[in-house]
Amino acid sequence: MKTDIQIAQEADLKPIEEIAEKLDLQRDDWEPYGRTKAKISDHLIEKLKHKKDGKIILVTSINPTPAGEGKSTVTVGLGQALNKIGKHTVIALREPSLGPVMGLKGGAAGGGYSQVLPMEDINLHFTGDIHAITTANNALAAMIDNHIHRGNALNIDPRKIEWKRVMDMNDRALREIVVGLGGPLQGIPREDGFNITVSSEIMAILCLATSLKDLKARLAKIVIGYTYDDEPVTVKDLEVEGALTLLLKEAFKPNLVQTIENTPAIIHGGPFANIAHGCNSIMATKTAAKLGDYVVTEAGFGADLGAEKFLNIKTRAGSFEPDAVVIVATIRALKMHGGLKKNQLTVEDLDALANGMENLEKHIETIEKFGLPYVIAINKFPTDTDREIEYVEKWCEERQIDVALADVWAKGGDGGILLAEKIVQKIDTDNKNFTYLYDLNMSLEEKIKTIAQQVYGAADIQLSAKAKKQLKAFTSRGWDQLPICMAKTQYSLSDNPNLLGRPKDFTITIRELSPSIGAGFIVVLTGEMLTMPGLPKKPAALNMDVTDDGKAVGLF
Amino acid sequence: MKTDIQIAQEADLKPIEEIAEKLDLQRDDWEPYGRTKAKISDHLIEKLKHKKDGKIILVTSINPTPAGEGKSTVTVGLGQALNKIGKHTVIALREPSLGPVMGLKGGAAGGGYSQVLPMEDINLHFTGDIHAITTANNALAAMIDNHIHRGNALNIDPRKIEWKRVMDMNDRALREIVVGLGGPLQGIPREDGFNITVSSEIMAILCLATSLKDLKARLAKIVIGYTYDDEPVTVKDLEVEGALTLLLKEAFKPNLVQTIENTPAIIHGGPFANIAHGCNSIMATKTAAKLGDYVVTEAGFGADLGAEKFLNIKTRAGSFEPDAVVIVATIRALKMHGGLKKNQLTVEDLDALANGMENLEKHIETIEKFGLPYVIAINKFPTDTDREIEYVEKWCEERQIDVALADVWAKGGDGGILLAEKIVQKIDTDNKNFTYLYDLNMSLEEKIKTIAQQVYGAADIQLSAKAKKQLKAFTSRGWDQLPICMAKTQYSLSDNPNLLGRPKDFTITIRELSPSIGAGFIVVLTGEMLTMPGLPKKPAALNMDVTDDGKAVGLF
Repeated sequence: MKTDIQIAQEADLKPIEEIAEKLDLQRDDWEPYGRTKAKISDHLIEKLKHKKDGKIILVTSINPTPAGEGKSTVTVGLGQALNKIGKHTVIALREPSLGPVMGLKGGAAGGGYSQVLPMEDINLHFTGDIHAITTANNALAAMIDNHIHRGNALNIDPRKIEWKRVMDMNDRALREIVVGLGGPLQGIPREDGFNITVSSEIMAILCLATSLKDLKARLAKIVIGYTYDDEPVTVKDLEVEGALTLLLKEAFKPNLVQTIENTPAIIHGGPFANIAHGCNSIMATKTAAKLGDYVVTEAGFGADLGAEKFLNIKTRAGSFEPDAVVIVATIRALKMHGGLKKNQLTVEDLDALANGMENLEKHIETIEKFGLPYVIAINKFPTDTDREIEYVEKWCEERQIDVALADVWAKGGDGGILLAEKIVQKIDTDNKNFTYLYDLNMSLEEKIKTIAQQVYGAADIQLSAKAKKQLKAFTSRGWDQLPICMAKTQYSLSDNPNLLGRPKDFTITIRELSPSIGAGFIVVLTGEMLTMPGLPKKPAALNMDVTDDGKAVGLF
Repeated sequence: MKTDIQIAQEADLKPIEEIAEKLDLQRDDWEPYGRTKAKISDHLIEKLKHKKDGKIILVTSINPTPAGEGKSTVTVGLGQALNKIGKHTVIALREPSLGPVMGLKGGAAGGGYSQVLPMEDINLHFTGDIHAITTANNALAAMIDNHIHRGNALNIDPRKIEWKRVMDMNDRALREIVVGLGGPLQGIPREDGFNITVSSEIMAILCLATSLKDLKARLAKIVIGYTYDDEPVTVKDLEVEGALTLLLKEAFKPNLVQTIENTPAIIHGGPFANIAHGCNSIMATKTAAKLGDYVVTEAGFGADLGAEKFLNIKTRAGSFEPDAVVIVATIRALKMHGGLKKNQLTVEDLDALANGMENLEKHIETIEKFGLPYVIAINKFPTDTDREIEYVEKWCEERQIDVALADVWAKGGDGGILLAEKIVQKIDTDNKNFTYLYDLNMSLEEKIKTIAQQVYGAADIQLSAKAKKQLKAFTSRGWDQLPICMAKTQYSLSDNPNLLGRPKDFTITIRELSPSIGAGFIVVLTGEMLTMPGLPKKPAALNMDVTDDGKAVGLF
């Protein structure tokens, strides 16, 4: 079987100007980055404001398992399939982080015959967006330490600096560090640490800003820490929002590439889906909606995290609504939710499958609560048996739920025609009745409880002493009007990663809150969140290489 | 008076494809990065190997002073002037580091009407080369700490790791840090520190490699530290040279831009000129020589550092020779070398000027030792008086030295016509007799002494106890066959930055040696070298901004 990179390198990529022409982009609307990548002007949405937006299809999934759900692959495959059935479609995806590429993953841009290309570039430096975010983040960090070193006019308490430096790398040795050592010329010694870039609030901001002006306003609002009197200190206080915006002005422009079947794809932004909202940028989604009659986009992890935040945070910030949802499941992952181990998945097991359906069932209920039409996509794996597939199809039919087998890894767009037809029909015939799950005027605690009960199926929430104290402080600062960004394990509907399927009668423990005032949400932590991954014993990097004529090896 | 950024933003930039066409580049030879930047294939030199190389003109200067010499401005202005007199010329320059741009400098891409454009991009992220170097450098650092954390099969002594992490930022708080804190899951606690990216050995390697294959071979040779038994540990031992090369494969391609007068300029690589060799990449210079009949290129700091290393290190690694040298001086800086303070320079002072000439005289002698023809360029400032300029011209004429006033900041190429004519005549009529200053077979100590005596005018060198021990160890490891990369203050010919003019009877103290085996030289430190700058009290970033329609503000 061919690897992703082999399939990618054999693909017939069109010059990016052909893709741009197909989208009716004028020369001023875009800039090339190499022969097969481009940036689209951040003014295009404004320029095309009188043009009707395309229909937005959100792809989400059941809770992820080590078996893999292939949400990105289905997103790409569905986009290709829609084009095959004559629907002019643009895909909107997140940018992969380089850290995990060098560590475990080796690459992340769809798979098989449903990939975005050039996959080597997308997986490495791409158009430099994440590097720009790293730079802006660390420029701010340097300005903070310099401010303190140079007299600390703002009275910043070095023990209460919340702003961490970042790196787009898996580097556990940087999780907890002490900086400023070496005497009076080297700054102020203090405890610090690095996060991975994609967890930076600046990444979340870039993805939620709707214009360069909005970007600057959001950057200004970032709370970097507190004074000795516990007053929040912002970027505006440090007067560097202009410089940070300048550093981000190119990164703010959405990137245009193509899929293996030359379907246009906009890949832009990639915030964490636990401590941030896990969706590609509003600029990407809205640009795609201006350029396509249909947009296929995705949100990170399962519907309990990515879709919930897409629908409660991203659509609010961007003032738009999706038109339909695809919920991706695989037979393998459903069987894991039904109790099987990873090494048992290649054998047919209808009982495990039946048990695992309850995980899908919960996510279906969640999407229904948002008032959105949906179709279930079974992402086909070679080990799926006909009886297993029939079981899921029948389960759906009994409940009058639309379902389609998608074989897009192996067949590209051709493998997603049925899914494409069903989703188009769904959009054409169903009356959507989109509603946010909570009102912004509710208290922070009520909002958290709503998500825990309505989306996770929890009985209740429990607040730590620290969280209670923070709720009070945040409310007194007026931060209670913001939406919630839950940081919870992606593996379970609960806050215990080992509880697969559909856990019942559980409590969600709220450990701590963290204000992302620039991004415009309150992060609610339900457990330890790793914001700087480590490398495995044999990092993927050990297999990477480049031939003398510049061809990438070892990305997959 | 207009600022650099105002002049830049009013310039009439040509689309980069027009510049590429003017250079006879075929579509496969280059890739656009935006509308006015491009990358040139690293295979072009090989493809054009039968084409005769253009004449290479090296621009160097007297010892820099706070008054400014404007070496980059003269380089750009001379390139423009050569094109004006009908000589098809390509400029080759270094890429600026973002750290100092955000800190003190606010920008570095020539000045006035002798700038390279788009100056905003060049000063910010450009085509991402420096970010790629940061990433490769830090991927290696993460692999080292991960290796130790995962069992340390190579027996690396954590106290003897020489490989530092880097950031393209002025951030003094990162100079001395402790990493790996937080318990057994967070790695091994150890002392560490960040350097600024441009001081990374990987930057030096990228600038000295002659092919992707050579790049990989050099990366493999990097010594990252030592085992408990004091054996060097290399990148090859860690098996990551392939991944590092992959991360650098796009950064390795030279960047094409244009000057304000649309002269083609290749801007690529920017290693420190103290702990590294301070020149743009060999790929840039050799590509420029394939594309132009004349190449104007520069080396960092004064002729004692940049030119010496250009001639002893870069030309050796690249197997090429320059054809002539321009030595840049300003009346202001000569007067500082003659004893004036910075605030006294606007008043005519022929005595100070006469005293300061000895600094220029020493650099002239150095270039003569290399057997190269040269012309002195007086880079004009508005405060220069006619009598001061006449004095320098007469001083040169008495010694039969070619000299030309260059008014390129204010007049662009028109201000450099005389300089251009003189340098062309020099190349056409003088028999150059280029010779390296030392033979590689000499001992490290003899090589250091040769540079100190022949280039700096020192009476002798003095080795610290540590340096003596290192000389012995390096020799026993076979590293004594490498050239020397002196790390010395740029402000003085001596190792004391306060000794301006032409100090006499001084000794150069060799404090320490550092092996850059991948770059292929031994760094010799004569004092404390700051490899991570700090920010000033009012960083340039505070004045930076971007308008709502994306126009940069505050770069100069």
